Amino acid sequence: MVFPLAGPCTRFTAKREDAMTDKDGAIAALDTLLGQRLVRSKADLAAHGESESHFATTPPDAVAYPETAEEVARIVAICARARLPVVGWGAGTSLEGQAQAFQGGVSVDFTRMNKVLELRADDMDVTVQPGVTREALNHELRATGLFFPVDPGANATLGGMASTRASGTTAVRYGTMRDNVIALEVVTADGRIIRTGARARKSSAGYDLTGLFVGAEGTLGLITALTLRLHGQPEAISAAICAFPGVGEAVGAVMDAIQMGLPVARIELMDAASVAAANAYSGMDMPERPHLLLEFHGSPAAVAECSETFGEIAALHGGSGFDRATRTEERNALWEMRHNAYYAILAARPGARAIVTDICVPISKLAEAVDETRRDLQESGVQGPILGHVGDGNFHAILLIDETDAEEVAAAKAVSDRMVKRALRLGGTATGEHGVGVGKLGYMRAEHGQAWEAMGALKQAFDPLNIMNPGKLVPPRN
Amino acid sequence: MVFPLAGPCTRFTAKREDAMTDKDGAIAALDTLLGQRLVRSKADLAAHGESESHFATTPPDAVAYPETAEEVARIVAICARARLPVVGWGAGTSLEGQAQAFQGGVSVDFTRMNKVLELRADDMDVTVQPGVTREALNHELRATGLFFPVDPGANATLGGMASTRASGTTAVRYGTMRDNVIALEVVTADGRIIRTGARARKSSAGYDLTGLFVGAEGTLGLITALTLRLHGQPEAISAAICAFPGVGEAVGAVMDAIQMGLPVARIELMDAASVAAANAYSGMDMPERPHLLLEFHGSPAAVAECSETFGEIAALHGGSGFDRATRTEERNALWEMRHNAYYAILAARPGARAIVTDICVPISKLAEAVDETRRDLQESGVQGPILGHVGDGNFHAILLIDETDAEEVAAAKAVSDRMVKRALRLGGTATGEHGVGVGKLGYMRAEHGQAWEAMGALKQAFDPLNIMNPGKLVPPRN
Repeated sequence: MVFPLAGPCTRFTAKREDAMTDKDGAIAALDTLLGQRLVRSKADLAAHGESESHFATTPPDAVAYPETAEEVARIVAICARARLPVVGWGAGTSLEGQAQAFQGGVSVDFTRMNKVLELRADDMDVTVQPGVTREALNHELRATGLFFPVDPGANATLGGMASTRASGTTAVRYGTMRDNVIALEVVTADGRIIRTGARARKSSAGYDLTGLFVGAEGTLGLITALTLRLHGQPEAISAAICAFPGVGEAVGAVMDAIQMGLPVARIELMDAASVAAANAYSGMDMPERPHLLLEFHGSPAAVAECSETFGEIAALHGGSGFDRATRTEERNALWEMRHNAYYAILAARPGARAIVTDICVPISKLAEAVDETRRDLQESGVQGPILGHVGDGNFHAILLIDETDAEEVAAAKAVSDRMVKRALRLGGTATGEHGVGVGKLGYMRAEHGQAWEAMGALKQAFDPLNIMNPGKLVPPRN
Repeated sequence: MVFPLAGPCTRFTAKREDAMTDKDGAIAALDTLLGQRLVRSKADLAAHGESESHFATTPPDAVAYPETAEEVARIVAICARARLPVVGWGAGTSLEGQAQAFQGGVSVDFTRMNKVLELRADDMDVTVQPGVTREALNHELRATGLFFPVDPGANATLGGMASTRASGTTAVRYGTMRDNVIALEVVTADGRIIRTGARARKSSAGYDLTGLFVGAEGTLGLITALTLRLHGQPEAISAAICAFPGVGEAVGAVMDAIQMGLPVARIELMDAASVAAANAYSGMDMPERPHLLLEFHGSPAAVAECSETFGEIAALHGGSGFDRATRTEERNALWEMRHNAYYAILAARPGARAIVTDICVPISKLAEAVDETRRDLQESGVQGPILGHVGDGNFHAILLIDETDAEEVAAAKAVSDRMVKRALRLGGTATGEHGVGVGKLGYMRAEHGQAWEAMGALKQAFDPLNIMNPGKLVPPRN
């Protein structure tokens, strides 16, 4: 249902250069435009039909590898004439099917748009193409004293991270992509290139279009360049790890730390099952109990003070084995283990696939949300290790399923469904950082009410032909 | 010009309860709805036609004083039937004519919607009605250990501050309204009440409608409730003041402090003319030279360390008389003086009105922008003391004009025009915090290019009848 508009019909005012074509005509035109950079090999189509999550493999009709914004604009214009879907592809690491072409069409792969365009160290910002990955950017920045903090775990592209409004382990300190994208270049559904935002640190000059395209999952346009906020590398970094008797105690420590305003840079929960999986996968030897993993950034004195304060908080909640890792190698090993936790959990049940949940609740409701979820998992007999960015109130249960066992799949989906409803009941959201795609589409009306229809009206205004990643995020067209 | 839409016409799907009416019919219906809370007295109309800036007084047709979101929705629905403009009114402190009903219509005054609805200290958030002022909110919070940091100087309402995407002296540390509004309740142009955002600290659940309504200046809907992020009152606060031989040296010190990541909570510039005005108005005795005013928030040790570091930076740039104010009364006197600087400057030339400029540039361009502006002021013979939130790259020249002197007005407008063009040339924005209204409307195409037309398409989708604060922010309808 489209948001009812209480007025006269929006005028169709575009100048149409070309007549409508069919799919074959569009593919031929793309072939002329891109030559060998339009690929239709079975292997390439299959690779762009897969995801890391549990959705069915659905290959696109073609994969385009543009090198410039102008080429992207031409691709979109050609697809518009044939009403052919256009789906952006970064690193293929999204978890709700955002990059999959469920309705066919052209997968626009940004692999070749992977340049850092301009670094301005004095202003602590950088302009990059969308195919640059976060690791590549930080590698490029290593000699500057600056870094880009948003860290979703996977080595995603920055275009994909912006489109999904990604966050991850450091959001508690540095914010999400919403907070770290300053300006964008975007190709809109009619094949135009627009620029949103200025490089000034703030602006009141009209609607926040930058914020609108961040998190829009390519449904309003394709991002072709991003200007990102950089941060100074902290003078000192200290990591810590601490075991707790139960998840409730660990979450209690998190709530205390956040509510007292302790400036943690990372504060991550792994439950006992996650710890067991990580021990096996990453060769660690943590006691198989719930753990918090922390990091502190600042001056040496500030970092030491924070770490000490957290040690005291942890002790009050029964924490034990509080262990600081100040050496770089120790820290790297710790966070590599954490980043690999998803794969470790998958490996804990060979052959299994995962339904990844992603709820986020107000911090005062975190203990309740985690507790009820754990009880539900136990009662349902679903295997679902829990980990998450608990400083934000965001956590994941990784529900492991044997896809051939319909009963098990149904039980896992029911757990996931109850998790989302629990989050909404507690004032939270269906998705803290993974986005909507198709996986969370069914919850948007419950989460947003009539505001979801406003999103539909917005989509209609920007993409009247419904070619930009159709079937995702907004209400289906009627 | 409307953003050309490359597709079929948007359907008109609203159920129309009532036939179209004329203005008198609408006023009569509002009178029935609101009784004595619909006011048409000359004094009240005149008061709602004025602003603190230089725009002509243009009274609305009526002033409505709603008490609930439902009443606001009814007001908008009644106005929609008569195509009567609806203009929100908070404290009347906006500077670009945002609250003035230049096309007539109904001024919706939120004075009676001034309640703090729900404080959740554990989650560090609060839900308020739009008519609550920032001072009233902080008064309410005084016993909680929490505060709301955004401080534009004027005691504006929070609904108005959100609509203008206001910021002010503390944005360098705590961000702008964009960063501190979590969720909204909004009455849309068709008289519906929608809720945007969740109370979770982050979400990837669809388009950022909250961010879209923040800074929309009431052109997409009227905010009827806001959920705001609160911050812990810092353990220690220390203010400081420092004189510099010239503005260039002061700005140099700011750039060094920001680029090294010094965590200042406020860093404000007043040039010699602003200082002279403040001395006269607030009974201070600062040397008549450019000054920086600073504030540091944190632990006592951190605050002392920052203050000392800044003292060293200032000394390198010729700063002198670096003076710390750690006592609350000293600090309050300092910031009251700063908050009154606008009125002090106005008082420096009795009878004068002000054209307030508001450019914001990347920090690396700040010295250049201030230098060129000062030279321009001197060469044009326009009286324009400069002050600003220089930690963000944002500054104001308060251009004092005798409105009866056409030549002087023209010279001041020419200075203002060149300031905006300078900001855009340097990668900045026409308005750092005052918004567009009508005052900056003429620069939006230059600043945004085709993205301004995208804003027009968005307005068209949300407000097809063009009744919500018409004539502001977006391209005029063709």
